[in-house]
Parts: sequence; structure tokens; C-alpha cells
Amino acid sequence: MTVNIEDIEAAAETIAGDVVHTPTASSPALSQHLGTDLRLKLESLQLTGSFKVRGARNRLGALDRAQTPGVIACSAGNHAQGVAYFAGRMGIPATIVMPRDTPFAKVESTERYGAQVILEGDGLAEAQAHTREIASREGLEFIHPYNDELIIAGQGTAGLEMIADAPDLDAVLIPIGGGGLIGGCAVAIKARKPDVEVIGVEVESYATMRAALGGPASKGTGATLAEGIAVKTPGDLTIPLVREFVDDIIAVDEAAVENAVELTADTGRLVVEGAGATPLAAVMEDPGRFEGRRVGLLVSGGNIDMRVLASVLLRGLVRGGQMVRLRVQISDSPGQLARVSSLIGDAGGNIVEIVHQRMFYDVPVKQTELDVVVETRNGAHAAELVDCLSDAGLPTRMLSDVTGIASA
Amino acid sequence: MTVNIEDIEAAAETIAGDVVHTPTASSPALSQHLGTDLRLKLESLQLTGSFKVRGARNRLGALDRAQTPGVIACSAGNHAQGVAYFAGRMGIPATIVMPRDTPFAKVESTERYGAQVILEGDGLAEAQAHTREIASREGLEFIHPYNDELIIAGQGTAGLEMIADAPDLDAVLIPIGGGGLIGGCAVAIKARKPDVEVIGVEVESYATMRAALGGPASKGTGATLAEGIAVKTPGDLTIPLVREFVDDIIAVDEAAVENAVELTADTGRLVVEGAGATPLAAVMEDPGRFEGRRVGLLVSGGNIDMRVLASVLLRGLVRGGQMVRLRVQISDSPGQLARVSSLIGDAGGNIVEIVHQRMFYDVPVKQTELDVVVETRNGAHAAELVDCLSDAGLPTRMLSDVTGIASA
Repeated sequence: MTVNIEDIEAAAETIAGDVVHTPTASSPALSQHLGTDLRLKLESLQLTGSFKVRGARNRLGALDRAQTPGVIACSAGNHAQGVAYFAGRMGIPATIVMPRDTPFAKVESTERYGAQVILEGDGLAEAQAHTREIASREGLEFIHPYNDELIIAGQGTAGLEMIADAPDLDAVLIPIGGGGLIGGCAVAIKARKPDVEVIGVEVESYATMRAALGGPASKGTGATLAEGIAVKTPGDLTIPLVREFVDDIIAVDEAAVENAVELTADTGRLVVEGAGATPLAAVMEDPGRFEGRRVGLLVSGGNIDMRVLASVLLRGLVRGGQMVRLRVQISDSPGQLARVSSLIGDAGGNIVEIVHQRMFYDVPVKQTELDVVVETRNGAHAAELVDCLSDAGLPTRMLSDVTGIASA
Repeated sequence: MTVNIEDIEAAAETIAGDVVHTPTASSPALSQHLGTDLRLKLESLQLTGSFKVRGARNRLGALDRAQTPGVIACSAGNHAQGVAYFAGRMGIPATIVMPRDTPFAKVESTERYGAQVILEGDGLAEAQAHTREIASREGLEFIHPYNDELIIAGQGTAGLEMIADAPDLDAVLIPIGGGGLIGGCAVAIKARKPDVEVIGVEVESYATMRAALGGPASKGTGATLAEGIAVKTPGDLTIPLVREFVDDIIAVDEAAVENAVELTADTGRLVVEGAGATPLAAVMEDPGRFEGRRVGLLVSGGNIDMRVLASVLLRGLVRGGQMVRLRVQISDSPGQLARVSSLIGDAGGNIVEIVHQRMFYDVPVKQTELDVVVETRNGAHAAELVDCLSDAGLPTRMLSDVTGIASA
């Protein structure tokens, strides 16, 4: 086998003291919500906000410094930051190639660690081609994000810590991107506790590891909140590890990922990125399978844009019926807004936003419609508000979205 | 002294196994940001989302069940949930009195734990009066939120765990509300490590413990994001403990609390409530004082409304110049929106929201103004966008707010 437990133990020794031993925390709130005893390995609290520093530190430690003018990597996200961080710390010149449309925040944090960032190519495939070109032209050592034994062994240290800190787990769920994290962790966990069920989680649109193991084909394209595991082609080093050491792969869809990010923040009080939330998404999708078991979730990272997180939280309130948009038909005369406001207030609704539209609605000219965004207790309470306004002679309907808000 | 280390050790024994031993986690990202080695005691991951269950469990465990038909407490927040949770678990009937304007979510979660909730009174003072009435009428045992030796000893177990898990700390910052948490924790920490500096943190508008100890008077009224520590009158049991065992009290203002909640989510990847963020706020306000030291932050709770959190996050983007509202003057003719959009896009701005206003702006009738909310790299980038549009003949100014968004 390409990577074995001794490699991971050696990696653990190499990275000790440099990389954070992150907590494996109980989440009583999430556990109660899902009827499962959940323990979260919080790589979201790791240096640079993801597990990627583990592999990067291990890989860079093995460099022949005399032979290498520097390293180069291609990534729009966590791998970039992991490599940049330890290259900076270890005084190794690093070049990171990122696709041109990489979000500002990711470029900035990579540069902050001291790496030279080159924005090149539409999408990751083009950026990769460019990376190989520069690497061979300038003699730089290419650091692959997952298809590399030292990277796999480094990532495996997360699993080693997790099973040491929570030796009583029955199952562990781990996100799968290229397979470096789950490959290393599965080797570590099975070496220590062969009876623990190790389950990989992919996002449906990039279930490429499942496909590589003979499962249904996956398109491997499209936008996803779990961009950290949106990998087209798993590695030829990682596929055999997953085949041998991983018991099952679950694919979750986009809605499940978004729900899991929201639940992790709201109920779990932790900020996680889409990829990091996929293990929880898998439990939410099939709680019966995990009921009453001790289940470890490897929260691989916390690097989510705050605008995206805010949007997920607001959409969560809308989905939960705690925020609704009501369209109220009123006559275009003084005092109507006050009337609507007091009816809603008296019924216990909290008005968050109001839009008075006159031009486009399909009502007689002396009538107008008011869009009111209201915070409510739940869906039933929202329905009560609709009835209460309609009964007062103000025909009201609930719109299915609160677009003005959710788009923020 | 009212509460000593033996009381806290006894409390630790009483609550062991029932209450979560929460992690004291490193936050490399926050530490790097502030130049301080920060360790966060995450009571936000505690049962019910705050430390309050510690005192509640300890207090309820000492009840003479034969003498008591049930317990009663008055609280709009975490104390309510703490008492309700363990009363429910221990089969003790619980009545919780909450002020009438208590947010839905808090009422619901308290009821979910099995308590009977009574909504009564405008504000906490009226609710308290009502509580005493019911207590004496129905012979219920009143559970004070902080002025109670068993409560103080219970809360102190958080400090005991923290100093055991991070024995190398130089200083610990702890929020002060009524003084139960800091009273107990200070006793515990000083008993174990007399040299650790123990610092209390209050919010400026409720710096009532500082006032009780002879500091400047505090108004003790007004809305605050740190509602968990908005206490008018500290306890006569807690004041002497703070006087003897707490080295200093820092008061932070509202803006600092909001910034700290935002930084904890964005950089720290943790969801905390306003009160729980006050220790970080104190470090952010005076980083020089803590530079290079090992500093423990007692994150007392994570119970923040998701709508409030979303709003804090969006306001944070605005403050950081990563989200701006531009007002662009255009002629009211076809193709203008496309022109503005491409200029902004070409300059690397990402348009988030657009409002086309015709009626109210102070421009000639054939002109109109466009409000565009744009995501930018930072303030300098935003200024570049303004110049770029103005140079193209579209007079543009930056508005200081992105109200439509922040209000969401």
C-alpha cells in the first residue's frame, strides 16, 4: 500500500508543535437535534482554517532544500493557504497559481502568508496547465494537493488525533475531495480501531470518488457551496486507499450542504465551510442510520466567505418560516401603513423591512400593494398573520421568498 | 468568604458527567491577528449554549425534593434555559418568568426543555416582581441567577476546567454580568494559579460591578448586544469575591462588542453571543497590554439570534470596506445600466444589489441615480471604482452605509 500507519505516525512527529492539535469537541446541541452522539474534529480551528497545513508541513519538511529554488502549487483555496503558510514560515519561496476568478479574500490571505500569487486561467484546469509550465520552466517543485504520499500521510494525522481523543467512536464521516484527507485518515483510524466504520462524503455533483470506485457517473462540474471538495479527478494514489479502508461513500446534494452549514452555525455555534459541513449533511439526510451511535465528524475547514454565510443564515430563517415576505393589498390613502403595522405588531410579528410598490403590481390604480418582511415564530404563526390581515379587509398572501433579504 | 475552592471542587464532582467539559481551544487565527496567544474556553459549546447549566445543575442537585413542589426563575436568556434544562432532566417542575418582549426563540427553547414559561412584565424588573409573587404564593424555590453560593460554585467549575486544561496562562478575561461566573472562576483560578491575572469585562452601559467597587457610575440601562451581562445590580455575594480575587475590570463599548462578535465569526470561526465576545473585545481595544502573553478568554455563551449575527457580519463587511454602496448619476436612457455594470465589473467589483431610483433624488428630470451595492477588495479598491466611474462621465459618490443590506 502507498501510505501506511507508520508513514502517518512519522508525519505526526514531523508536524508536532508546528500544526495545531485541534479539539474533538462534543456538540450537545447538534447531538440532541439529530439523536446521535456527535464529536466534531474542528480543523476549522486549524492554522489557515483547514486541515491542509498538515500535508503541506509534512511535504515541505521533506524537501531537498539544496536542490529546490522554491515550490509551486495550484489551488483557489485551502491548499494554497496551507502551502503558502508553511513555505513562509520555513523560508521557502512559494508561487501559487490561482484561477482568474478566485475571490479577493482567498488571494489576499494567500499573499499575506508571503506567497507570490499568479492569477491565470479560466478555472482550475487552465490554471493547472499554466502551473506545470512555470514549474518546468523555473525548476520549481510542484506540490500536488492530494496525489502525493507525504501529503496523504500529513492529512492522516487529523484522523490519528481524532481517534486518540475519541477512542469510543462507532463511525467517522470524512469529506472526500481528491481523497488525500480521507485516504490518510482512513488508514490511521483503521490501524487503531479496525471496527470503526469509516464513511466518505461527497457532494452529489462531484461524486467522482464514488464513480472511480464503480459507482454511478458524476458530472464533476457546476457551482457548489462545497467548493473545497469539488474535484474532477481523484488521485491514483488515493483511490486504492479509499477502496481498501473506507466502508461507504455518501453523496449529499447542494440543499443538504447549505442546511448543514446553517445548522452548524445556528445550533452548533461553529462557522464551517461547505465542504466541512458535508459530514453533518450526511447525518441530517439519514439520521436513522446514525441514531444512538457515537459518530465523529471531520470538520475539514471553516473558510467560508462572511457574505455567503450571512446569506445562508438568512435563507435558513426563511426556510424555517421564521422570516416571511407578505404582500398586502391596501388602498392608496393616508394611515394604511400604520394600520398594517399595528395589526402585525399586535399579532406578535416583528417587521424587518417594508417596500411600498406602486408601479408594477396588478391592482387597480387607487389600490397599492405593500411588501412586508416579518420575523415570526414559525410557519404557523406566519399563516396566522396572513389570516389576521385578510380578516381586517387587507387581502394578504405569503410570497415564497424574501428575495431582498436573501440576496444580501 | 462565601465561596471557596472546596465548594467549587464539590460542585465539579456534583455536575461531572451531566455537564459538558468544554474545550479550551487555541485559535491560531485570532492569536495571529492580535499578537497574543489566545485560548478560548468554549462554553458556547456547552449544553443549552452557555455556562449557566453549571450553576443550575449544582443548585438543583442540592434541592430538598420533599420540601419543594418546584422551582421558579426569572430570566430572558441563558439562566432560563440552564434551569429549564436540568429541571427537565431531573424531573423537577420549573416555572420561568420572562419579560413580555422576550424574543420568540428564547421562549421556545425554554419551553422545549419542559419548563412552563410565563410572559409577564415590561422588562426584567417587573418580571422579577411578578416572580417573587408567584414564588411565595405557590411555595416554589426561587433560583437566583447569580446571588447564590451554589450557583457561584457551579459557574466556578468553568474556571477550574480552564486552568487545568491551560495551566500556562498568564491572564484570563471573564465577562461580568451579576458576577456569578467571574466570582466562582476567580476563586478557582487564583486557588490553582495565584499568579494568573484575572480580569473582568463589562459592557460600558452596564459597568455596574465596576461602579459597585468604587469605579465611575454606570447608567445600567439601554439596549446592548451583550444582553447576557446587562445587569443593573450585582449581587452582595459576588461583589466581595470580585473585590478580593479579580485584579482589574475593563469596560468595552457597544462597537467593540459588535466588532468582537464579527471577528470571532470571521477570523475565529466560532459563533458567540455579545456577552461571550466581551473578553475578545477587551483584547482588541488594548492589544498592547496583552501582546506576547498567553491569554485565556472565557467565551460564556453562543446564543445569538441568527438574524442578528447575519446583520453583524454584513455590517462588518461594510466597515471593512469590502462592501460599499455607490450612488451613480446616469442619464435616463437605454443602455446606461449595462455601461455602469461593465465599468464596475471590469474594475474587479462584484455587484451584489442594485436600486434604480427616479422619484426622490435631487437631480434633473432627465437624469436619474442608481444605487449599487458592490463587493470590493477593500476601501482603496472601492475608491478606485468611484474614480473609474466618475472618469467615464458618470458622477459617483460613496455612501457611508449599505442600509438595505445591513438592515436585513
